[in-house]
Amino acid sequence: MEAGKLAPEWRTEFWLNAGEPVSLASLRGRPVFAIAFQMLCPGCVAQALPQAARVRAAFAGTDLAVVALHTVFEHHAAQGTRAALEAFCHEYRIAFPVGLDAPHPAGGPSLTMRDYAMRGTPTLLLFDRAGRLRQQRFGHVEDLWLGAVLQGLIAEPPATHPDAGQATACNEGVCNIPPTGA
Amino acid sequence: MEAGKLAPEWRTEFWLNAGEPVSLASLRGRPVFAIAFQMLCPGCVAQALPQAARVRAAFAGTDLAVVALHTVFEHHAAQGTRAALEAFCHEYRIAFPVGLDAPHPAGGPSLTMRDYAMRGTPTLLLFDRAGRLRQQRFGHVEDLWLGAVLQGLIAEPPATHPDAGQATACNEGVCNIPPTGA
Amino acid sequence: MEAGKLAPEWRTEFWLNAGEPVSLASLRGRPVFAIAFQMLCPGCVAQALPQAARVRAAFAGTDLAVVALHTVFEHHAAQGTRAALEAFCHEYRIAFPVGLDAPHPAGGPSLTMRDYAMRGTPTLLLFDRAGRLRQQRFGHVEDLWLGAVLQGLIAEPPATHPDAGQATACNEGVCNIPPTGA
Amino acid sequence: MEAGKLAPEWRTEFWLNAGEPVSLASLRGRPVFAIAFQMLCPGCVAQALPQAARVRAAFAGTDLAVVALHTVFEHHAAQGTRAALEAFCHEYRIAFPVGLDAPHPAGGPSLTMRDYAMRGTPTLLLFDRAGRLRQQRFGHVEDLWLGAVLQGLIAEPPATHPDAGQATACNEGVCNIPPTGA
Repeated sequence: MEAGKLAPEWRTEFWLNAGEPVSLASLRGRPVFAIAFQMLCPGCVAQALPQAARVRAAFAGTDLAVVALHTVFEHHAAQGTRAALEAFCHEYRIAFPVGLDAPHPAGGPSLTMRDYAMRGTPTLLLFDRAGRLRQQRFGHVEDLWLGAVLQGLIAEPPATHPDAGQATACNEGVCNIPPTGA
Repeated sequence: MEAGKLAPEWRTEFWLNAGEPVSLASLRGRPVFAIAFQMLCPGCVAQALPQAARVRAAFAGTDLAVVALHTVFEHHAAQGTRAALEAFCHEYRIAFPVGLDAPHPAGGPSLTMRDYAMRGTPTLLLFDRAGRLRQQRFGHVEDLWLGAVLQGLIAEPPATHPDAGQATACNEGVCNIPPTGA
Repeated sequence: MEAGKLAPEWRTEFWLNAGEPVSLASLRGRPVFAIAFQMLCPGCVAQALPQAARVRAAFAGTDLAVVALHTVFEHHAAQGTRAALEAFCHEYRIAFPVGLDAPHPAGGPSLTMRDYAMRGTPTLLLFDRAGRLRQQRFGHVEDLWLGAVLQGLIAEPPATHPDAGQATACNEGVCNIPPTGA
Repeated sequence: MEAGKLAPEWRTEFWLNAGEPVSLASLRGRPVFAIAFQMLCPGCVAQALPQAARVRAAFAGTDLAVVALHTVFEHHAAQGTRAALEAFCHEYRIAFPVGLDAPHPAGGPSLTMRDYAMRGTPTLLLFDRAGRLRQQRFGHVEDLWLGAVLQGLIAEPPATHPDAGQATACNEGVCNIPPTGA
């Protein structure tokens, strides 16, 4: 989806590596790095998930939240189960919270994937402290660019945006947020 | 298992990327590169399977056979099904024959994995034209070493070994082969 | 040297890829990325200089200055000449300004290298808009960390530091700057 | 030059990492891996020389000879001196013999480079036990291919070629060898 336009709540079925279910609302007040992936997506495994682990380590001293969304849009039998996701996270030693995006009854892309009109995996989502989507990128992004953008989000004060108070005006799983420059 | 000692037939359930089921016996007369892997084994995905694809390309002009064995010893629910293996081979564009090693009824390592006393995945198996195991290596091996060993096997004439005629003297899925220097 | 403590002017003999000689003073008002290297230092060639090129590309839309200092402390006959540095920059397609740090008459480390008490090459120097040293790192640094720190420096307004006006109070090639948090 | 056609003696000025000067004739009887490089050639530094070191390690148990020729064709002032080559070999920890190919009085490519009609650097030269050129490759070659070709050369018996005895029929620095299939 277009950055700054909408910030729909994630629609997940369960979370691994998390004491309680994670939601975009529960992370309000913190900048959020979320990587949407599939366990059988080569680019996700080789690049995006290792990058997420690097982000988690590099920004461990900040309040940045690092999570992943397992957004299955193909091979549902193979990678859409809890057992598959648990085995994958165990073998690849994924230590940050991973949520299974809820499947669509008709198959194809999962629900959050549809809400954000993702083109595929990996897709990077960056949210500011007000819960607004600030960056959505399909494919690989460079560490230098990512480090700079994250630092920018971390440096923003919680009340930096005049519309922050309106960010909870959501319905039907979609939060309508006034446009903001990305 | 120890190189040159035994060459048990593989005990697979089905093969992908192959018109007919592949067996060690069906490849007799050709040198064989076989990589035992698991689809959720990071070292297999990052190194061993790409190396197998490089071997296939580099030796395309020879009669070297290149195959893979999916030897599951953990996370059976996640990676032990045909659907999981098919999805993996599709996403990672595996073009050479891949056989699912038969599971043990009690779980744990699959049957061929047990026969060869493999320590884990990836495990490289190299066989000569007489069907004898010549190399078994757990973990990563270097391309230079591998290229040299494969060239050595390819250069061997079919009748170079005096015991080649006895190689079909198998029973109970195990071929007893006199020791040979690796 | 310790970050924030001192910001001595660079003592260079000549510059390549620059219309006019570059100095720390001439870059006052802009954040500065400077990489001290030797052309025969493997880590510089393999990692630090490619990273400098990535920084230049990633921050092309900002006023960040990217320069390199050829700080020779060994093999002066081989790498200390203008011909050697020109050939190196040509072959490695270095496009940003590169200054030759002035040699010490007695050999050993060059002058700026001594002023900053560098331990070797590569050494990263990051300066803020006021010309103060904010980071000095020997060896490899990660892109994520570097992107974040650079974004922080870029985001600082020129007048953010109360002592900025004093930054030109230099003598004997050394500017005495009050300590600041790195 | 064309493989198998000619095997001119190398025309070097001096050797590093060698007790005595090395020549193609002095290596007769052994297979030879020779890499022609320039110290300021990025592809040589990043790929060809590390590959040579890997070859030396992988075939340490054989009689393969591993050497390098510093074939300067540009930036003679910067990289054509003994001091430059010594500094480079020291910094990059080159442990195998390195010879400086003799410069041409008129500049441009060095003498052996001209004799072999090399197109640039890196150029790989592989010789058999009879001293004949068997492979000449400009640019990067894959480890798998290289390992296989080297194993083939190592496996050849000294007297495998009927013309081996004629290989010393050289004059004017050029040995005329009957064509052989590469």
